[in-house]
Amino acid sequence: MSYTEMSREELQNTYAQLQAHFAACKAQNLKLNMARGKPGAAQLDLVGDLLTCLTDPADCFVDGVDARNYGELAGLPSARAYWADVLGCKPEQTIMGGTSSLTLMYDLIAKAYTHGLLHSTRPWCKEETVKFLCPSPGYDRHFKITESFGAQLITIPMTPTGPDMDMVEDLVKDPQVKGIWCVPKYSNPDGIIYSEDTIRRFANLKAAAPDFTIMWDNAYCVHEFDGEFVPFADIISLCEAAGNADMVYEFASTSKITFPGAGISVMASSVANITYMLKLMGIQMISYDKINQLRHVKYLKDKKNTLALMKRHAAVLEPKFRAVLEMLDKEIAPCGFAQWNQPKGGYFVSLNTMPGTAKRALALCKEAGVVMTDAGATYPYGKDPQDSNIRIAPSLPPVDELRKAMDIFCTCLKLAALEKLLNI
Amino acid sequence: MSYTEMSREELQNTYAQLQAHFAACKAQNLKLNMARGKPGAAQLDLVGDLLTCLTDPADCFVDGVDARNYGELAGLPSARAYWADVLGCKPEQTIMGGTSSLTLMYDLIAKAYTHGLLHSTRPWCKEETVKFLCPSPGYDRHFKITESFGAQLITIPMTPTGPDMDMVEDLVKDPQVKGIWCVPKYSNPDGIIYSEDTIRRFANLKAAAPDFTIMWDNAYCVHEFDGEFVPFADIISLCEAAGNADMVYEFASTSKITFPGAGISVMASSVANITYMLKLMGIQMISYDKINQLRHVKYLKDKKNTLALMKRHAAVLEPKFRAVLEMLDKEIAPCGFAQWNQPKGGYFVSLNTMPGTAKRALALCKEAGVVMTDAGATYPYGKDPQDSNIRIAPSLPPVDELRKAMDIFCTCLKLAALEKLLNI
Repeated sequence: MSYTEMSREELQNTYAQLQAHFAACKAQNLKLNMARGKPGAAQLDLVGDLLTCLTDPADCFVDGVDARNYGELAGLPSARAYWADVLGCKPEQTIMGGTSSLTLMYDLIAKAYTHGLLHSTRPWCKEETVKFLCPSPGYDRHFKITESFGAQLITIPMTPTGPDMDMVEDLVKDPQVKGIWCVPKYSNPDGIIYSEDTIRRFANLKAAAPDFTIMWDNAYCVHEFDGEFVPFADIISLCEAAGNADMVYEFASTSKITFPGAGISVMASSVANITYMLKLMGIQMISYDKINQLRHVKYLKDKKNTLALMKRHAAVLEPKFRAVLEMLDKEIAPCGFAQWNQPKGGYFVSLNTMPGTAKRALALCKEAGVVMTDAGATYPYGKDPQDSNIRIAPSLPPVDELRKAMDIFCTCLKLAALEKLLNI
Repeated sequence: MSYTEMSREELQNTYAQLQAHFAACKAQNLKLNMARGKPGAAQLDLVGDLLTCLTDPADCFVDGVDARNYGELAGLPSARAYWADVLGCKPEQTIMGGTSSLTLMYDLIAKAYTHGLLHSTRPWCKEETVKFLCPSPGYDRHFKITESFGAQLITIPMTPTGPDMDMVEDLVKDPQVKGIWCVPKYSNPDGIIYSEDTIRRFANLKAAAPDFTIMWDNAYCVHEFDGEFVPFADIISLCEAAGNADMVYEFASTSKITFPGAGISVMASSVANITYMLKLMGIQMISYDKINQLRHVKYLKDKKNTLALMKRHAAVLEPKFRAVLEMLDKEIAPCGFAQWNQPKGGYFVSLNTMPGTAKRALALCKEAGVVMTDAGATYPYGKDPQDSNIRIAPSLPPVDELRKAMDIFCTCLKLAALEKLLNI
């Protein structure tokens, strides 16, 4: 029965029962983690052959390059071709990175601050104010990058088709607005795929800042866990067609395709932007790890083969997401105080619980040994104005542990809601 | 005979003979490269087992960590212990990097500009003027980093015992002087080992800037090619003993131990600095490549085993340096217009030719297909006030090619000197 339909006595009885259950859970001294989108051991075991696909030094000669030695700042040509295939852009529009696309994003923002981007009139550190748009709920690590550099973060509400584009189109008229964070496919945490119309409006943005930058983090570009691969527009050619060729930088990585701790990443943009960035990067490094690029090319081969691997990841992930959604349907749906998404890809379930109770619910979780992403983390400055959004990351624990964790999580959601309703 | 002792006619005859030889060299259409300290193929072949030392996923569990997954920002504990062993510092004083220590250096300077270092009163981008000390001849990539951020570069002369410390001690009284670049062992390009007294004076510097930083690039820490390993002081504990615990950051990498294009690097400093940097780095990345760290630990094992490997590198490198030095002794010494060092480690021979002729000599080399590091590159802003210093990098070509390249190089040195003497 929905909590709003219960009498005070019924609420009190429910609360007492849940408290008893919570005490029993605590007594188990569990240590469960649903905090980050960390692949589980079964996924890592899928890609063990990455360790054996390049063992002969003779195989290190490729594209006319000895991958073992210095050189090739932009990365191995075959690795650039691989990513161009996956993202639907051109090899010359790519730069290969190290283990983490996050680093490529951080470094781009850092260089905007210290040196300026291609069309900057001055480095951002010389601007009085830099504003950055943050579709929320969103990815805490994105927001922290721009926060760390002192940018003023502006929350953009998410809709079922992507960020509120009316608001975005209006705000980019402000020349102090320098960019926007996007996870366009299976957005973190909502799992939303930006609609064609949203993407078209992004490509056609009329920004006042000449160096306005769309940070297009295509982290889940091939990360369907339920159903077939969903083709996705190439934002780079769309921006070019709209006369905004240098407005977007796209990012992706193999962190959730091969090994999170030892993958390769990519940054893609217009050739003009890539040329400009390579000039700056040439001062910072000789190249990222070319042997690991080669290893990945040999192992992943191309987009088609990568999609086949992602099916095997999906077979591990889908039961975990199903367990989470089944528990929510069974335990929380009848209570009527929370809503959540039904993602078909990405790494998260985004849940909105009774406003004003998210922090309390997660504090209770912690008491019982279940670690979740901090409440508020999905909003700029870690502050959810509604104290409602919670990001659930089901990928790490095995299904049986996940069910235990979700049992505790649901109990805590209910306890926090009841405390609120009962003014406890 | 020394050119200074020759009559004009003798000089002219010599010049004519050299011109004929130069024309014959050009006709060979050679393509030879002595530009960078790039290891040769024979060195890369020494370490092929790095590709096969980690092939079983079960071996990825180490130090209680699954090296395949996210986490461990500072690096695998066993990799930190390895570098502490090599550098003579403590594991907790280290952070593991990616393929390139250059990136760790760039990122440190970048963070000084955008966020400030531990003892900065403000980020360096908010300072009116930042000055940086550049012992010269030195490493062009060091100088370019600080130049790229707009620092004012100040040349410090090198002496046989290291940088001119009287000048350094005097200049650090200026609070705008924020740091100094050092390659303390087998300095690039002079091959000088800083004396104990120089190192002691570094550790005891009384700098006016609270965030004055010694960039201690120990690139050639185990890179003897002639003779036994030379033990070297741990600058971190010396600075600590002198009350300057947070004044130094040390850097090293396996770029010239294993694969230049796929090694691991390290930054070492006081625990207070490391803690501060990890906080900033936590916004930039999850971790560098832990599988590659593990691969290196399994392959290199410890300092003792690494020194044994360096003996095998030395066996490849020593004949190359010998060929260079023999050619210089035979071809250039009698002419009396140039001096050079006799290094026992590192990657370079540093030569001072007749002032005002280095650029011309290297332009001639280029005409004949021999690429060298640009003349001037070893000085701030790429400008050698004497136009005299040339960095020879003998590591890449096989010995027979090296002899051909050196023949052309010596010819060009002489041609340029004769042009000067003859006012051609």
